[in-house]
Amino acid sequence: MSLKMYDLAGNDPEVRFSPYCWRIKMALAHKGLTVETIPWRFTEKHVIAFSGQERVPVLIDGDRHVTDSWEIALYLDEAYGDRPALFAGEQARAAGFFVKRWCETQLHPALVRLALADIVQVLTPADAAYFRQSREQALGRPLEDYCEPREAHRKALDACLAPLRSSLKVTGFLGGGAPNFADYIVFGAFQWVRCSSREPVLQPHDPLAGWFERMLGLHDGLGAKAPRAFAQLPLKDGPPRDGPPREAG
Amino acid sequence: MSLKMYDLAGNDPEVRFSPYCWRIKMALAHKGLTVETIPWRFTEKHVIAFSGQERVPVLIDGDRHVTDSWEIALYLDEAYGDRPALFAGEQARAAGFFVKRWCETQLHPALVRLALADIVQVLTPADAAYFRQSREQALGRPLEDYCEPREAHRKALDACLAPLRSSLKVTGFLGGGAPNFADYIVFGAFQWVRCSSREPVLQPHDPLAGWFERMLGLHDGLGAKAPRAFAQLPLKDGPPRDGPPREAG
Repeated sequence: MSLKMYDLAGNDPEVRFSPYCWRIKMALAHKGLTVETIPWRFTEKHVIAFSGQERVPVLIDGDRHVTDSWEIALYLDEAYGDRPALFAGEQARAAGFFVKRWCETQLHPALVRLALADIVQVLTPADAAYFRQSREQALGRPLEDYCEPREAHRKALDACLAPLRSSLKVTGFLGGGAPNFADYIVFGAFQWVRCSSREPVLQPHDPLAGWFERMLGLHDGLGAKAPRAFAQLPLKDGPPRDGPPREAG
Repeated sequence: MSLKMYDLAGNDPEVRFSPYCWRIKMALAHKGLTVETIPWRFTEKHVIAFSGQERVPVLIDGDRHVTDSWEIALYLDEAYGDRPALFAGEQARAAGFFVKRWCETQLHPALVRLALADIVQVLTPADAAYFRQSREQALGRPLEDYCEPREAHRKALDACLAPLRSSLKVTGFLGGGAPNFADYIVFGAFQWVRCSSREPVLQPHDPLAGWFERMLGLHDGLGAKAPRAFAQLPLKDGPPRDGPPREAG
């Protein structure tokens, strides 16, 4: 068994922040599978051209490859059915797909408005140029402008988090008493910001912070150990928004 | 076996529109249980005072009573475990709780801004006076003002529906190939507006309209047969927003 995965990396190759890749790193750990992750950058599309598309994660399992984080999760539950399941059956899987679409249509856009101007700073020079040009063309303005005014974006994120906050307070995990792939989907979103941004998304008093801490600690602290490009600063003290990202390793 | 349920009714006692009561009527039908519904109005809190709270649905099962639609669903799966389950296990139930909280914190508020000024017209005179006074005090303005500008509220609803729309297109139901209680939760929200408002929430081309039609047809057309206070008018033709509600019984 030889699993490899192309994993988005920053200028520091140890900084890995793709929310979609985090879903799969957690899913592999959930199933007790070890993987060799290969750092990949936005401007290395030629490296994964064999997969017939341009995004990571790409999972290599022996002589097979699987793309798209959702498809990879389904593949893992099928190919490794003797190991802990990512979803306990069809109903959990269908509801997990709703969580995925909620995450991608509501949570990701709310987080992007707080993190985008930081993310560009953690990329390789070539990736940063590509990223800034493509995103600014789509947004019609500089990344830094898109992330202002921060207080309004923080309020919008807070409203967006209401259903997650109030349900995790009761159920513990989206999977119930233990995490399933729905938890990894949402974890990926927060871990993305944690690894690539100064934005302290979750305040200590937030019920979500307890869930996120539990998620960070899973699988021998896989999430907690992940290098971060910036130290996160407390929200209330008016953090300075400059300072260099973590040096490349 | 004798099941009874207090069910919110309009001035026409056949018009039943509570989203929470619809969850349970669908859940009972899902389990093949028949129920006698008792019309109840907001100003009849004394009638359900025995339940120790002031909201419907209240389910009476022999000498027991159960309140709160979520608790009733859990009760039904436990007490009638030999009948079709509302949730297939803990993961589906936990994810269903997230759907519930999404529905209540995102979808209901978006629908209220389109339906509130109609809902007050379908109530008994006593309920209408209570409803208008209590809601207008909370909102700080007339119900009719709260529902304007309608185009902005329709756009907000459309954005809110994105995760539901894009997941049901793929999975068919929130429960997967067949509906579970998560579907009944969201169905209740749309059926609420369908039964008590002129607002045509779902356009025919909307992928959600197909799901809602399937939901209306379930259990011998339980939802489809429900009397509506108003005829729904096409959105695009600039429907007149006056005209009396359906006459009382």
